[in-house]
Amino acid sequence: MNIILLSGGSGKRLWPLSNDIRSKQFIKLFKNSKGKYESMVQRVYHQITSVDKDAKVTIATSRTQVSAIHNQLGANVSVCVEPMRRDTFPAIALAASYLHYEEGVGEDEAVIVCPVDPYVDDSYFASVARLEELVNEERTNVTLMGIEPTYPSEKYGYIIPDGKEEVSGVREFKEKPDRATAQKYLDQGALWNAGVFAFQMKYILKKAHSLIEFTDYRDLYAQYASCPRISFDYAVLEKEDSISVLRYKGEWKDVGTWNMMAEVMADRVKGKALLDETTENTNVVNELGIPILVMGAKNMVIAASGDGILVADKEQSGYMKPYVEKISTDIKFAEKSWGTYHVMDAGQGYLAIKAILKPGSRMSYHSHEYRDESWTILAGTGKTIIDGMEQIVRPGDVVTMAAGCKHTILADTEMTVFETQIGEIDKKDKAKFRLDSTSEEWTGE
Amino acid sequence: MNIILLSGGSGKRLWPLSNDIRSKQFIKLFKNSKGKYESMVQRVYHQITSVDKDAKVTIATSRTQVSAIHNQLGANVSVCVEPMRRDTFPAIALAASYLHYEEGVGEDEAVIVCPVDPYVDDSYFASVARLEELVNEERTNVTLMGIEPTYPSEKYGYIIPDGKEEVSGVREFKEKPDRATAQKYLDQGALWNAGVFAFQMKYILKKAHSLIEFTDYRDLYAQYASCPRISFDYAVLEKEDSISVLRYKGEWKDVGTWNMMAEVMADRVKGKALLDETTENTNVVNELGIPILVMGAKNMVIAASGDGILVADKEQSGYMKPYVEKISTDIKFAEKSWGTYHVMDAGQGYLAIKAILKPGSRMSYHSHEYRDESWTILAGTGKTIIDGMEQIVRPGDVVTMAAGCKHTILADTEMTVFETQIGEIDKKDKAKFRLDSTSEEWTGE
Repeated sequence: MNIILLSGGSGKRLWPLSNDIRSKQFIKLFKNSKGKYESMVQRVYHQITSVDKDAKVTIATSRTQVSAIHNQLGANVSVCVEPMRRDTFPAIALAASYLHYEEGVGEDEAVIVCPVDPYVDDSYFASVARLEELVNEERTNVTLMGIEPTYPSEKYGYIIPDGKEEVSGVREFKEKPDRATAQKYLDQGALWNAGVFAFQMKYILKKAHSLIEFTDYRDLYAQYASCPRISFDYAVLEKEDSISVLRYKGEWKDVGTWNMMAEVMADRVKGKALLDETTENTNVVNELGIPILVMGAKNMVIAASGDGILVADKEQSGYMKPYVEKISTDIKFAEKSWGTYHVMDAGQGYLAIKAILKPGSRMSYHSHEYRDESWTILAGTGKTIIDGMEQIVRPGDVVTMAAGCKHTILADTEMTVFETQIGEIDKKDKAKFRLDSTSEEWTGE
Repeated sequence: MNIILLSGGSGKRLWPLSNDIRSKQFIKLFKNSKGKYESMVQRVYHQITSVDKDAKVTIATSRTQVSAIHNQLGANVSVCVEPMRRDTFPAIALAASYLHYEEGVGEDEAVIVCPVDPYVDDSYFASVARLEELVNEERTNVTLMGIEPTYPSEKYGYIIPDGKEEVSGVREFKEKPDRATAQKYLDQGALWNAGVFAFQMKYILKKAHSLIEFTDYRDLYAQYASCPRISFDYAVLEKEDSISVLRYKGEWKDVGTWNMMAEVMADRVKGKALLDETTENTNVVNELGIPILVMGAKNMVIAASGDGILVADKEQSGYMKPYVEKISTDIKFAEKSWGTYHVMDAGQGYLAIKAILKPGSRMSYHSHEYRDESWTILAGTGKTIIDGMEQIVRPGDVVTMAAGCKHTILADTEMTVFETQIGEIDKKDKAKFRLDSTSEEWTGE
């Protein structure tokens, strides 16, 4: 099974746990069968591989998510990076080209495109596997999955099928309706459009070549900036007559808001928190090191991270986007290939950062022109390289790096490092140097 | 006017802004006439000195509050330190002895004892001044202030006067009653006992000498540990027949809970916070650097500090004490004579602290046996002395102090210093050395 998982979006609606760097699919609020917290992307990935252990999963995403994906799914997961954001059609075309021209996926093979962020039970991916069979039967050019609606939602697009069988032809697509219209659709047996598309490789390649002039994956990648901003729905589905839809009746939840997330998160409380007996139907997620005491709260969600603190009525939390946009967008937390960093304090001319490096990981070898930095090793052991000089470092060691000096740190064990930046910290100011092929950037600096 | 302000108590009920080190009277939620935030102790002090600019105010308190008092009221305010906590009678006896034996207050002068934490209007201190006149008239041995009750409260003790005049004799004292009994007291013209006592110096000295054997202030201080734990009410008032009470009808609020504090704090929101339009009757105090977004909250108080985050229904917040006691009591913030410190991170074998030093201030000259430390200067300039070696320091400078090494820092301008402690950080581990007479300790380390 060839699956392209579309991992997009920056998260305003699950603030303060999601931000422009950390999308909602990376927040660990679910639990795997062993009771360990996992994120949406981990959950979906494990669900796919449990249905088909040989599934070939490629994650189509932007550069900012690559570190988080490798951190959460391992170094070997296949990632197809969009050089910049376009819409779903170029993203799918790029990922399909990658599979065909780079990975050798044949023209007759089925390709299934899924969003990375639905909360579903395992039967969902059994249905995805069924889509592959349907594609192989070559009944229609495109096969979709339609979700059996549970209520007349105004939030989703609808697929109007031409029958009520498990697999039907598609008569029409409908945009997000008002409630009354949604009810009418339901009466006609309509399905929610979940953004799951399946087709043969040759179908999507043909569509891609007809809309974009390119020779192969590398060529498409090189000219990605000039690709049209166009959705798959608009570019393909609305012009295609040969479409069928497979009904899916299992659990499917769009956990795009805190209200929905509260329904499916594994534990009502994650992190340091104490709730009194008069608190009702309230969820708490606390990523900070300090405790939260909740008394007499009803139907609320409370979430705290290095970016901020949310205290919201569950219903009301669905309307947070404009408020979050008003709040300063300085990112205080990010997941990197080598671990995590937290901005602990920022002041006039300085920034104080706590970096936690994974065992065996390393930062890129880099320098800054306009700021001095220092590293104080708080825990763990490793090695620094400063202008070519190697030094073993242990807790208590302090390494200073004047502006212009090339530096990197390599962790033997897990390391906690306090970094100070002094100077013109607002400047984009980083030059990277080759030390060896595994060096990886610390973006966002 | 000789006023002894009793500044006691550690604060659990205004957590997380109060803690074992920072009592509620030091939280700055009020505003002075110039619109600048001030604390309870600042407000009361300024109210007294505006009624009587020559008032001789002595603050009777414990060692842990001395730095905060000097920070908030200036270096010249008179502080009488109890070497350890006893009850109100020894505390008042010690402060009165201090005034008499050390400060030369005469035996015939009036002394007035007030708690430091009522929220009152200026007429309250006009009444306090009236108490002095009443003491000088020598009508009774003790004169009290009684607050005209506004409702039959179960939270206060009651004074039953023998008349309804402005000044009456006192027939009886009553403990905190139930509501029905409180109503009966009100019908008899009873007053709340606000803990304000006035008498001549010779009266309290005689009482003190009759209960404790001591010669003068220094002797009493030296043997304070063996003083009986006994309240002023029990030791004096309940045994005294010659007591009168002055009625006070102005504003008087006991801001001991968040519910009460919310009524009188100057601004509904202090610190970084954004409240949506559906939020009602909700107060926010945010001492953290990150924003708080509040949506759809009703009748709540939200308070965040380095110690933790409170999200509470106002009514319910009155019952927080047992919950706060369950929460880890590691102090994350403290006010010192030289400024403030925040614990920013604590891990196995390390502590990371951000210290802000006031211009011209200094830490004590000290050393540790079981931990290495480092200072990274983030902002400001000053001087460090490390094993006798002076060094000018500026932003970006890093100073390391191995275990055993004597060190101090002196701030020229306001300085922001990041301190790391690596080693056995749980040990009480500090030796102080004389550098000159102004050195002051960093307690709690």
